[in-house]
Amino acid sequence: MDKIPILRMGPFLLVTIQVDLYDRLALNLESDLVQMVSKTNARGVLIDISAVSIVDSFMGRIIGNIANMSKILDAETVVVGMQPAVAITLIELGLPLKGVHTALDVEKGMQLLRSKIEASPGEDLNDDDDSISV
Amino acid sequence: MDKIPILRMGPFLLVTIQVDLYDRLALNLESDLVQMVSKTNARGVLIDISAVSIVDSFMGRIIGNIANMSKILDAETVVVGMQPAVAITLIELGLPLKGVHTALDVEKGMQLLRSKIEASPGEDLNDDDDSISV
Repeated sequence: MDKIPILRMGPFLLVTIQVDLYDRLALNLESDLVQMVSKTNARGVLIDISAVSIVDSFMGRIIGNIANMSKILDAETVVVGMQPAVAITLIELGLPLKGVHTALDVEKGMQLLRSKIEASPGEDLNDDDDSISV
Repeated sequence: MDKIPILRMGPFLLVTIQVDLYDRLALNLESDLVQMVSKTNARGVLIDISAVSIVDSFMGRIIGNIANMSKILDAETVVVGMQPAVAITLIELGLPLKGVHTALDVEKGMQLLRSKIEASPGEDLNDDDDSISV
């Protein structure tokens, strides 16, 4: 299976990462997600990594990429379910996942996304200080 | 990774199957799910199989088992995202997934579960004709 399913849940998209993200799979996920955000007009992306126990700089970069791409398309990204060991590794690798929100589980992640949508209901892309330089 | 993550979404549990369900993984999933249903008091289980392109009788049996176990614990099971080829194979294998509800995607599956919960809000286990003989 060389595709990670993207589930639509109302205004959000949910991705559960269960397998090691090798090159092609990660690139597929990036492009699938961005297309899906655009097609479904999604306002948020939830990435569940509770099954991920080993993380490397590649995976950290992929998550950062997805967050930045979604942000340009006006969707916030929340990473949920991170295992403590993964958090330790990410910081030790020098990857603090800038621009990525995190939450303990999917429910809390959805609450976070909902509060973010309510805080900025507009469709204007480059609102103020948190625009991304591309 | 020898565990499939189970995500809690309000009164429902969501499982996305992305890898081949070999013996131990399937048994782990069964026991994890049943424990989670009991622990979280879940009223419904959503199993997303949109990434599954090949199905065999073992997998059909596992899904049937999960549905029956959940039913005893007063939770309905909905399988969502089945690929047409998988539906063809299941019928040709003589596995019509009795007792398992299906829906096109997660959103429709959630609607189905919500309507089922509203239709039978009680906690009574052996209500009428659809009790399972164990």
